Amino acid sequence: MKLGTLKEGGRDGTLIVVDRELGRAVRATNIVPTLQKALESWPAMAPKLRALADELRDDKAVGSFELDTTALAAPLPRAYQWADGSAYVVHVELVRKARGVEMPPSFWTDPLMYQGGSDSFIGPNDEIEMADEAWGIDFEGEIGVIVDDVPMGISAEAARKHIKLVTILNDVSLRNLIVTELAKGFGFFHGKPATAFAPVAVTPDELGEAWNGARLNLPLISTFNGREFGHPNAATDLTFDFGQLIAHAARTRFLEAGTVVGSGTVANRDAGVGCSCIAERRVRETIDNGKPTTPFMKFGDRIRIEMLDRAGQSIFGAIDQKVVKYDAPG
Amino acid sequence: MKLGTLKEGGRDGTLIVVDRELGRAVRATNIVPTLQKALESWPAMAPKLRALADELRDDKAVGSFELDTTALAAPLPRAYQWADGSAYVVHVELVRKARGVEMPPSFWTDPLMYQGGSDSFIGPNDEIEMADEAWGIDFEGEIGVIVDDVPMGISAEAARKHIKLVTILNDVSLRNLIVTELAKGFGFFHGKPATAFAPVAVTPDELGEAWNGARLNLPLISTFNGREFGHPNAATDLTFDFGQLIAHAARTRFLEAGTVVGSGTVANRDAGVGCSCIAERRVRETIDNGKPTTPFMKFGDRIRIEMLDRAGQSIFGAIDQKVVKYDAPG
Repeated sequence: MKLGTLKEGGRDGTLIVVDRELGRAVRATNIVPTLQKALESWPAMAPKLRALADELRDDKAVGSFELDTTALAAPLPRAYQWADGSAYVVHVELVRKARGVEMPPSFWTDPLMYQGGSDSFIGPNDEIEMADEAWGIDFEGEIGVIVDDVPMGISAEAARKHIKLVTILNDVSLRNLIVTELAKGFGFFHGKPATAFAPVAVTPDELGEAWNGARLNLPLISTFNGREFGHPNAATDLTFDFGQLIAHAARTRFLEAGTVVGSGTVANRDAGVGCSCIAERRVRETIDNGKPTTPFMKFGDRIRIEMLDRAGQSIFGAIDQKVVKYDAPG
Repeated sequence: MKLGTLKEGGRDGTLIVVDRELGRAVRATNIVPTLQKALESWPAMAPKLRALADELRDDKAVGSFELDTTALAAPLPRAYQWADGSAYVVHVELVRKARGVEMPPSFWTDPLMYQGGSDSFIGPNDEIEMADEAWGIDFEGEIGVIVDDVPMGISAEAARKHIKLVTILNDVSLRNLIVTELAKGFGFFHGKPATAFAPVAVTPDELGEAWNGARLNLPLISTFNGREFGHPNAATDLTFDFGQLIAHAARTRFLEAGTVVGSGTVANRDAGVGCSCIAERRVRETIDNGKPTTPFMKFGDRIRIEMLDRAGQSIFGAIDQKVVKYDAPG
């Protein structure tokens, strides 16, 4: 089934069940008000939500309505944890190569992961509000999973069972702030503003053979100002699968239901498939031509990120966002 | 007023109002079920909670009971954001000095801040469960503030008005994991397991003259296995006050109500007042004697962190925790 959240009814929005074609939806209010609450009691809630999804499919759901993605928040408008990996190590290697520095071999065996801000995720069509173009505004197309309660110290194999939902996201990044933030040694803080999510998160069974329990074998398509920017396959060159990433996140802590775990920017070694972020294209330009030529995002630029199944149906709906100028309070 | 959270009624617990002496408490259920909900509607909720606090003070609160701090969760058992500064730059300078490396001068003007895990905070008497003593288990005594909704790009002066509650916390740290985590460049992830909080968070007026709107002028007392470990004053050598820290956190993002902002380990230049974490004592030992002699925490060790007002009354109650062995699931 496919789940989304309407921007109505408070900070956590209102949970809706969406049909496979992303055409119609129905509020799940009679079952559970929010996705966070559903994840906290998943074994009890999932069958009821699935029954509602069946009614929607059969055109029997009372109160169903046409889906308008601009009315949607992120599936979790806010979450208690956002742990983002960097699991396409080929991407990290490229970035290092452009800087002329060696990548530690341990990066192939020990996942990179940062703690992201999760208090205010933004919806699939929400504007990316930024005060300054000079910050180096970039998109990052990623795969994300949402888990139920995960015990500390879990194995990668056991961690797979905790994946309840899969989605895609835009991990907005401020490249020129990241440089100075990382130099301070405390992580990305300013460099990672609010993350945007697709219209829906889906249960793994919706992915069919494309999902093996821990990786998603389909291309992620990024379109920048109407032109395709990249379509790397999310299973190709994935060094750490989601079982490994969740186990990594849980090494010294329990993960509360509703924790979102990200893959990092989807990237393939094959330059022919393009990129899921501007930074990687700039790195490839630097390696090829000695300097980057693609600028970061300007006010008015649009980024669209989407994944299609083998029949061409959009799985999660499209993230489609415009960058706009933000004016700070006086 | 002083607010705490009972471990009852679900993941966010049950909000209670506690008297000044930390002797008696009363459930706030008739006003608002949880502290998170109270923070989301603070202008409406605060006067009602204050009226209940007055009833409790006057021994007129129906259903009041004797406070047992072992029944308490963190005031926010889980939060949507935990942004922890490192505002006692003298501490950072010491750590660098012991490593023989220069500290960038920008550290005196640009705050250090990391994104912490906020999905599962632990209570004042909860055990610190860790799988391995070799991780270098340490405590960190800090001051924390809890804010309501903060606009992106706010000034330090305007940010002060968003401080609704003040508390103390133990930012448990795994020193031997931090070394390898920071070397990877993505922040502390594994090095910062669940953070523990004092029994209560208090409104700034409870602090009287000790609070100037952005800093807390009282010693923070850490007691390790029954012996005083340090009592540095939280206003002394504080390079960035809470107005500055909140403004820093909000530079590229909105902060959702219930965000916790931390000071970092309270530390003074004066070695005579001791330390709020073992790592700093080891640094001072290294500078003085060429090597550290105080080991990190072992299973069975106890840490107590408390702050007393000028009359000797405990303000937030004591964090008092034991380190225990955690066995991961099979």
